[in-house]
Amino acid sequence: MSKRVPTAGKRIRDIGEFKLIDIVTAVVAGTQPGRLSLGIGDDAAVWRPSPGRHIVMSTDTMIEEEHFRLEWGDWKSLGHKALAVNLSDLAAMGARPRLALVSLGLTGAERDREVADLYKGMVTLGSEFKTAVVGGDTTTSESAVMISVTVLGEAPGGPDSVMKRSAARAGDLVAVTGPLGLAAGGLEVLDQELRTLDGGPAMEEAFLRPKPRVREGRILARSGVRCAIDLSDGLLGDLPKICQQSDLSAEIDELRIPVPLSIKWAFEDWFDVALRGGEDYELLFTAPPSAFQRINRNFRRAGLRLPTVIGRMVSRGEQEPGVKLRTPSGHLEQLEAGAFAHWG
Amino acid sequence: MSKRVPTAGKRIRDIGEFKLIDIVTAVVAGTQPGRLSLGIGDDAAVWRPSPGRHIVMSTDTMIEEEHFRLEWGDWKSLGHKALAVNLSDLAAMGARPRLALVSLGLTGAERDREVADLYKGMVTLGSEFKTAVVGGDTTTSESAVMISVTVLGEAPGGPDSVMKRSAARAGDLVAVTGPLGLAAGGLEVLDQELRTLDGGPAMEEAFLRPKPRVREGRILARSGVRCAIDLSDGLLGDLPKICQQSDLSAEIDELRIPVPLSIKWAFEDWFDVALRGGEDYELLFTAPPSAFQRINRNFRRAGLRLPTVIGRMVSRGEQEPGVKLRTPSGHLEQLEAGAFAHWG
Repeated sequence: MSKRVPTAGKRIRDIGEFKLIDIVTAVVAGTQPGRLSLGIGDDAAVWRPSPGRHIVMSTDTMIEEEHFRLEWGDWKSLGHKALAVNLSDLAAMGARPRLALVSLGLTGAERDREVADLYKGMVTLGSEFKTAVVGGDTTTSESAVMISVTVLGEAPGGPDSVMKRSAARAGDLVAVTGPLGLAAGGLEVLDQELRTLDGGPAMEEAFLRPKPRVREGRILARSGVRCAIDLSDGLLGDLPKICQQSDLSAEIDELRIPVPLSIKWAFEDWFDVALRGGEDYELLFTAPPSAFQRINRNFRRAGLRLPTVIGRMVSRGEQEPGVKLRTPSGHLEQLEAGAFAHWG
Repeated sequence: MSKRVPTAGKRIRDIGEFKLIDIVTAVVAGTQPGRLSLGIGDDAAVWRPSPGRHIVMSTDTMIEEEHFRLEWGDWKSLGHKALAVNLSDLAAMGARPRLALVSLGLTGAERDREVADLYKGMVTLGSEFKTAVVGGDTTTSESAVMISVTVLGEAPGGPDSVMKRSAARAGDLVAVTGPLGLAAGGLEVLDQELRTLDGGPAMEEAFLRPKPRVREGRILARSGVRCAIDLSDGLLGDLPKICQQSDLSAEIDELRIPVPLSIKWAFEDWFDVALRGGEDYELLFTAPPSAFQRINRNFRRAGLRLPTVIGRMVSRGEQEPGVKLRTPSGHLEQLEAGAFAHWG
């Protein structure tokens, strides 16, 4: 395990709350959106949403030693990821992200520039998607650094304007927006110090700085897709949620699952890494076969990688909703739901 | 220190994520507001705000051993307080709370009914203010239970529709909506097991289940008050924020500060307990003397306790903005800003 590199700068516990807020305010200044009446520095932020839009909101927390280790990466990456996993939730709904609130728990041993870097990481990713950090809260958390982010986005009105887990239909194809397993590979790379591994840096990048598929989500929703989820818990953690909530089963085709060669070369259990590893933050969606011409055309026009079809939704018959795997020999086998390790 | 009482029920780590979400969903069911399109169970919640309103939002986190101990109270109180401190932020803006998102970190050792109680505490307080818990996230947090709440509220449009820390004017009177020091007293009662103390149970109640002054905040805003803050860090933690952001000083009158007799009797340093103890969650506001007739009339009509004037805002002259105390002898002395202990 590599040691944490000591950083210059003042410790947070020595500079006090006012100075800490000054640091945060300095980093987010200039990124505040026009429709914001009041940002950081008051009890609450005030924002005027676009007329007629629905507000789409989500919250997600990262805790030291559960979701990250400080020695793994720089604080900018940490800020990037804390926001990215939240933007990914909005992407799964097809919403346009607008604002983020950040609740930060610090031990006090952190340096001022580490905290500035954390916010820089958020602000940099946020500006890519026109999402501003508009407020939040800092508190003492002696046992572990904690970053809780809440994001607000907008979606057009109307009951079908967002993609839902419960909206899959029998006969829909199941597709993903990108490769599976890179992030889980990246965790291994960091944990075992395998950076020289073929494809190692790309895996590390996928784990530390996941790309929220916001554009993909909005295009899917505009292309008429009604059902999506983001892959935070892996295909076998998240596809069962669609099955459960849509009261259907899914059949996925082993040969169609997009697993990078680097993952197959690096890990003997690459299939589990790809299906259960989680944290890829690609979108998983279902749509009728007839929709894919439109989806692919819209993705191509936007310069985005085309989705990969990996299977289809089927009636669950007399069985509980679940995921089955079609092996290369054509055999169908039941897959156990679940991601690695976490209970939540 | 009293031991934590063992509770019946299943451990969270044994029941898994799906069951945990079922428990949460069962508790919040029936409290979902009409304008909510999608609540718990998807990647994000979807909500249609009232036309023309501004969205007011805030977030606040409570961490085990920093903000609470599990042996202090039941989980319902914990849920109450986690939501209350957030509603208090909206109260300070004069906003009407509408929704809450909850991000919960659990060690896994908690019982299912403890988690249900936590949400019951939130739902009970929430329904008092028509605020629904509409979504959130659960995660593992091995070293400490963590509850991060984000609240969304609405305020009428227009730039002056919310109360701000920066809007005090020289000559404004400074007032509070209730007594100071009870919550800090309650912390002592819990910590030292002083429940038989005269007024002890009321102090404990103030600390464990603070009442967010939502009605008071809305009436203040409607009565034309422009500047308010909620007293989370104590008078000497929060009044300096108004001074700083309004570029003014404040003079408070020792004899006017509403300190309950029970606090004076219980604590030799009662003045510090009342001024620096924090967590009272009363509102502190400033308004021109001419406004108080209207404010008092509106409070009386609503059946609310009248605010107590404790001092006034004055020009800072050549000095840094700060808080001065007028002693019973008429002498003015500078008070050092700051609450107990916390750096943030």
